[in-house]
Amino acid sequence: MQGLSASSKLSLAVLVVVFLLSLESSASAAHSRRRLVSDAEDEPCNKMTLYYHDILYNGVNNTANATSAASTKPTALSTTHWKNGTYFGTLVTFDDPMTVGKALPAAGEEPVARAQGFYLYDKQESYNSWFGFSIVFNSTAHKGTINLLGADLMDQKTRDLSVVGGTGDFFMTRGIATLQLDAYEGTVYFRLKMEIKLYECYV
Amino acid sequence: MQGLSASSKLSLAVLVVVFLLSLESSASAAHSRRRLVSDAEDEPCNKMTLYYHDILYNGVNNTANATSAASTKPTALSTTHWKNGTYFGTLVTFDDPMTVGKALPAAGEEPVARAQGFYLYDKQESYNSWFGFSIVFNSTAHKGTINLLGADLMDQKTRDLSVVGGTGDFFMTRGIATLQLDAYEGTVYFRLKMEIKLYECYV
Amino acid sequence: MQGLSASSKLSLAVLVVVFLLSLESSASAAHSRRRLVSDAEDEPCNKMTLYYHDILYNGVNNTANATSAASTKPTALSTTHWKNGTYFGTLVTFDDPMTVGKALPAAGEEPVARAQGFYLYDKQESYNSWFGFSIVFNSTAHKGTINLLGADLMDQKTRDLSVVGGTGDFFMTRGIATLQLDAYEGTVYFRLKMEIKLYECYV
Repeated sequence: MQGLSASSKLSLAVLVVVFLLSLESSASAAHSRRRLVSDAEDEPCNKMTLYYHDILYNGVNNTANATSAASTKPTALSTTHWKNGTYFGTLVTFDDPMTVGKALPAAGEEPVARAQGFYLYDKQESYNSWFGFSIVFNSTAHKGTINLLGADLMDQKTRDLSVVGGTGDFFMTRGIATLQLDAYEGTVYFRLKMEIKLYECYV
Repeated sequence: MQGLSASSKLSLAVLVVVFLLSLESSASAAHSRRRLVSDAEDEPCNKMTLYYHDILYNGVNNTANATSAASTKPTALSTTHWKNGTYFGTLVTFDDPMTVGKALPAAGEEPVARAQGFYLYDKQESYNSWFGFSIVFNSTAHKGTINLLGADLMDQKTRDLSVVGGTGDFFMTRGIATLQLDAYEGTVYFRLKMEIKLYECYV
Repeated sequence: MQGLSASSKLSLAVLVVVFLLSLESSASAAHSRRRLVSDAEDEPCNKMTLYYHDILYNGVNNTANATSAASTKPTALSTTHWKNGTYFGTLVTFDDPMTVGKALPAAGEEPVARAQGFYLYDKQESYNSWFGFSIVFNSTAHKGTINLLGADLMDQKTRDLSVVGGTGDFFMTRGIATLQLDAYEGTVYFRLKMEIKLYECYV
C-alpha cells in the first residue's frame, strides 16, 4: 500500500465496512433481484439463440398463415427513380413466431416467443431495413419482453441489433442480437437466426 | 481483507488512488452531475406516476380536441382475413397531454408533460401495440425528456415498457414504465396510468 | 471520508464489487474489450461531431439526389384542423449522408457514415418530430453502428436525442447526441450538426 497516505488507508477501511454493510442489507431483501453487469465482451450474463420467421402477406392468397404485412407503400422516390423494388420507405408490421429450432411451429403449437413490431426499408439501392420490436415471452419457462432496435445491414453476412431494454424475466437488460439470414422463399418467407447476448442482467 | 490475494490488494490500492484523483478533479467541476445506479430492483433512484390521455381523431367531428391520428390504414391482411377491427398495421401518431391527476388539463392549462411519438397495432387477433415515444417536460419543475419503447400487451392487467434514455433533468436515465388502462370511452379516448421507475440517474 | 455523500459511498462500494468481479475474469480473456463507464456528465469516454444532410424528395424533379421521402401522408387531423402544413403524422424514411465537415460529399465520394431510419412529425402546432435511426459506419476508420432515438424539439436552439446502443466499434455504447439546425433550403434540404457524446464504452 505504498504511496497511500494514512487518511487514504483509513478511507479504505471505511470503504470495506460500507461494502460489508451493503452485503448485509442485501440479505434482508432476498426477493429483490440485483444488478449484474458483465463487463467483458466475451462473457455475457445470459444468451440464447432463436429463429425468427416472417411470412409476408402477398396480397393474394396467404391470408391464413401470413404473419406480417406492409403498412405503407414504397415511396414515390423508390418507384420513380430506382424502379428496382427495394421498397424504400415501406414499413412492415409483424407479429412473427420465434422458435428454438428451425421449423415453424406445428398447427396449434405455441411458439417459444413472438416478435412484435416493425421493420422499415430504408435504403434505395438495396434491401437494408431498420427494426424496432419486442420479443414477447409468455410461457412457463419465461415471462417478459426483450426490446430491440437497429439496422439490418443485409449486405453483411452477420449484423448486430441493440437490445436496449427488457421487462419481466429480462428486467432492465441490455445487449446485442446477431442476425443471420438462415433461409428464404422468394419474397414471402424469410428466417433469421438471432443470437442474443445479454451483458446487463438482474439476478 | 481476508480472501483477497496480495495482487488484489495492490490493485485495490491503485483503484483507490484513481478514485481519489477523480475526487480531486471533480472539485474543479462542481456542477457536473455524477452517475448513480440503483442496483436493486426495489430501490429506484427516481420514480413518478403520470396519466397519459389519448384522444383519437375520429375522422368526423373532434378535430378541435383530438391529440392523435392514424398515419396509416389497417393493412390488407387485417381487413381481408380477420375483419375484426384490430387495426393490425395501423400506426397512430400522438402528441398527448400527461397529467399528475386523472383529469384532462383545463382549457388553457399546460399539462405537466406531453407524450410525443407513436403506437403501432401489431397483432392480428387482439389490440396489442408497440410504442416509441418521448415524455417531454418543459416546466419550471422539470426540463428534459424521457425516452420509452416497448410492447403494450393489452391482455395483461399491467405491462411494462422500457425507459431507454433521457435528456436534460433525466440525462442518460434508464428504467421501466408500468402501464395500466385507467379509463376509456369507446375507441376515441383512453387513459393510461404510467408508473415510471428509474434505476440509472445522474445527480 | 469527510465530504463524501452517502451516494458517493454507495458508488464506491459498487465500484469495488465491479472491480473484484473483473479481477476474477480478466486473466482468461485478454483480447476481449472491457466496459468503461464515464460517471461524470462532463467526461464522456468518446465524442465526435458529424453533420447530417437530409434532401427530401419533392415529388417532382429531385429524384437523382434526394436521400429521404415521405412514407405516409399528413393525417387528416393535420389537414382538416390546422391546415398549416406541420405534417402531423407524416413518417419520413431517410438514408442520409453524414460528414465531418459541412459540405455534402463530392460526386462519387463516400460519406464518413450514413444515417438510416425515420423521423415522424408528431406535433400539430409546429414541426417537432421523433427520430429512430442508426448511424452506420463502414470505413477503414470505423465499422459499426450507433443507435439513436428521441424527440427533435425544434423550438429549442439545441436539443438532445438518446444514444441507446451500438455495435461493432461502438459495442453497447450509450450517450447523448446534441442537435442544432445548421442550414436549410426551403423544405427540401436541411443540415443538422450532431455532437455525439458517449458515456458507456468498451475499450
